[in-house]
Amino acid sequence: MGILDREDRGRVAHLRMNAPEKLNALSDEMLAALKEAFETLREDREIGVVVLSGAGKAFCAGHDLKEMQAGRQAEDGGAAWFGDLFARCSAVMEAIRTLPQPVIAMPHGIATAAGCQLVATCDMAVAAEGTRFGVNGVNIGLFCSTPMVALSRNIPRKQAFEMLTTGEFIGTDRAVELGLINRAVPQDQLEAATMDLAEKVAGKLSAAVRIGKAAFYDQIEMPVQDAYAYTGEVMVRNMMLRDTDEGIRAFIEKRPPDWSQ
Amino acid sequence: MGILDREDRGRVAHLRMNAPEKLNALSDEMLAALKEAFETLREDREIGVVVLSGAGKAFCAGHDLKEMQAGRQAEDGGAAWFGDLFARCSAVMEAIRTLPQPVIAMPHGIATAAGCQLVATCDMAVAAEGTRFGVNGVNIGLFCSTPMVALSRNIPRKQAFEMLTTGEFIGTDRAVELGLINRAVPQDQLEAATMDLAEKVAGKLSAAVRIGKAAFYDQIEMPVQDAYAYTGEVMVRNMMLRDTDEGIRAFIEKRPPDWSQ
Amino acid sequence: MGILDREDRGRVAHLRMNAPEKLNALSDEMLAALKEAFETLREDREIGVVVLSGAGKAFCAGHDLKEMQAGRQAEDGGAAWFGDLFARCSAVMEAIRTLPQPVIAMPHGIATAAGCQLVATCDMAVAAEGTRFGVNGVNIGLFCSTPMVALSRNIPRKQAFEMLTTGEFIGTDRAVELGLINRAVPQDQLEAATMDLAEKVAGKLSAAVRIGKAAFYDQIEMPVQDAYAYTGEVMVRNMMLRDTDEGIRAFIEKRPPDWSQ
Repeated sequence: MGILDREDRGRVAHLRMNAPEKLNALSDEMLAALKEAFETLREDREIGVVVLSGAGKAFCAGHDLKEMQAGRQAEDGGAAWFGDLFARCSAVMEAIRTLPQPVIAMPHGIATAAGCQLVATCDMAVAAEGTRFGVNGVNIGLFCSTPMVALSRNIPRKQAFEMLTTGEFIGTDRAVELGLINRAVPQDQLEAATMDLAEKVAGKLSAAVRIGKAAFYDQIEMPVQDAYAYTGEVMVRNMMLRDTDEGIRAFIEKRPPDWSQ
Repeated sequence: MGILDREDRGRVAHLRMNAPEKLNALSDEMLAALKEAFETLREDREIGVVVLSGAGKAFCAGHDLKEMQAGRQAEDGGAAWFGDLFARCSAVMEAIRTLPQPVIAMPHGIATAAGCQLVATCDMAVAAEGTRFGVNGVNIGLFCSTPMVALSRNIPRKQAFEMLTTGEFIGTDRAVELGLINRAVPQDQLEAATMDLAEKVAGKLSAAVRIGKAAFYDQIEMPVQDAYAYTGEVMVRNMMLRDTDEGIRAFIEKRPPDWSQ
Repeated sequence: MGILDREDRGRVAHLRMNAPEKLNALSDEMLAALKEAFETLREDREIGVVVLSGAGKAFCAGHDLKEMQAGRQAEDGGAAWFGDLFARCSAVMEAIRTLPQPVIAMPHGIATAAGCQLVATCDMAVAAEGTRFGVNGVNIGLFCSTPMVALSRNIPRKQAFEMLTTGEFIGTDRAVELGLINRAVPQDQLEAATMDLAEKVAGKLSAAVRIGKAAFYDQIEMPVQDAYAYTGEVMVRNMMLRDTDEGIRAFIEKRPPDWSQ
């Protein structure tokens, strides 16, 4: 068992952060393991969906503060090292967003600071009831500026601002209302409910889902006219897939598609 | 009765898609009829608001799949034709967004794929209770990439992503919560409730509503500073209208305005 | 007592608009007073949070219509003067957004047109139960184009569009649901609840909150990749603060931080 376990079930890969004694903090080692795992998954044509969870009593409590403080010993007070650390952390977040396969966060316990950012960054999230979410760096004088990039693209502004400046936690009911997670289920149904969602998506035509996920995040940052020009081309590319031809044909003929995946 | 009926009541034009046997699919013929109807409405100074509904048991079930498949016979496998089709479909969506008058969708039954996109694209939407909304192209291997342009600008990201990758439907309660529709009413009150809203808006000063609708979509894509510079000019233009002078004067004098419209 | 009172309690400055006979309209005098107050606060290192409220029976009813109409006497029908007025009003809104300290709106009674814009513009808002919010300029022929800049960045599109084109008011329950305010409390608890929130935020490391607020609005307008590059630098700057070092150290040592503020 390493710091990040991967277990595949059919077309779903389950990544589990495994440093429970540190509440799965995003240490140098954890960031490197996540980076490597997503690089490998990126090339894995057998995997259609990724689930991300944490071992122990928390999903993820953000950065490893002791490790961060050690960085201050450098001549520049740690500036260069901190810059590198945040760049590596953001690269992991971007690896999730740009992964061809959808990634579903499966948080439980607590998801704070960069741990809450992980939830916000994943394409979807199913949480255990009672999970607490917070961007609480402000409590120790370190505003959650990188986590807010993901958070503020998931929930409304005033509510994001309150979480960021009060450091207060929200529960799963509120997280559902605000749009931070897709749903919450009792802890003992968490894995089953998440796998249900994962398998549902993994059962779709993988090439179409990949095309769609990339287009989702690309178009959302464009002016609407450009977004239509761009997604129009994406639709043509999708239509040209042999399996899409088969999928539509099967639908018209009222039979299940015979996909090559 | 053609494929698209138009019935005017006072300052409200009601467009009804009328191909119930195809669940009002956006066939070539339907797209052409919608395009023409909006081009005509654009110039119609008598009409203040447009309502869009569908005849039969569904609002609109998206593209006409049989027609699409026929396009594959071309030498290029249909690529050029598909590109043209999606461009024509997006042009209809953009015709709604850029129409000077507000457009209210009045969905019932189902609104799927490009039919759900129509709902998302309209400025407002009043639905019959029980209507089901979905972007379910993924089920047949064709990700709803153009519909998501409108959908992802209406509802939060994770919820849009789930609809797009699971192909699952949501009901009217959820559609209200997410912001996809303004409200849902019992089927037998649908037309009355929609007409209430339409007439309320049609009773406002038309020139002001037109100025405002255009500015709404323009400013929303700008950085906030530019948006203020731009809308400041819009407000001046609005203030310069003779009827706005009269409207403000009437308000101060506590009497109804004597507008020229 | 001037047109805008300021009362400081610890690190919280409370600004109260004080023209109750005009429902605290944003007259020339009020706009000038707000501008000056925010310019002074911008330089005030002792103040960590600002609360904005209105005296009398309403928070703010928007522009001063009689004053506006008087502007029409000019040779150009008022165009130049209106342009200047909307520029001054937008400058006040931007002064709130770009103020280093968080600003909490504390509305009660009614908040309409530019008064609703004030609520939308503030970083957070706590309202008295029963407060009514509206962008109702359309009722007198003047679409709330500048207010919608703030409104449409706070609540979903279709709901903003409905408020703007119907001129109808929403209550506090709906305002919470849509994200326009953070919460509503009974009128007799309004000041206490707002001060609770203000003091909570004012008790955080002020330098971190300032860094964070500026970054919040800057990053939200950037493509996500740029936002990460930018906030990464912001985090480094934050880490370099002496008090952040102390804050993290204190957290690790399980003791309260000894901050210099």
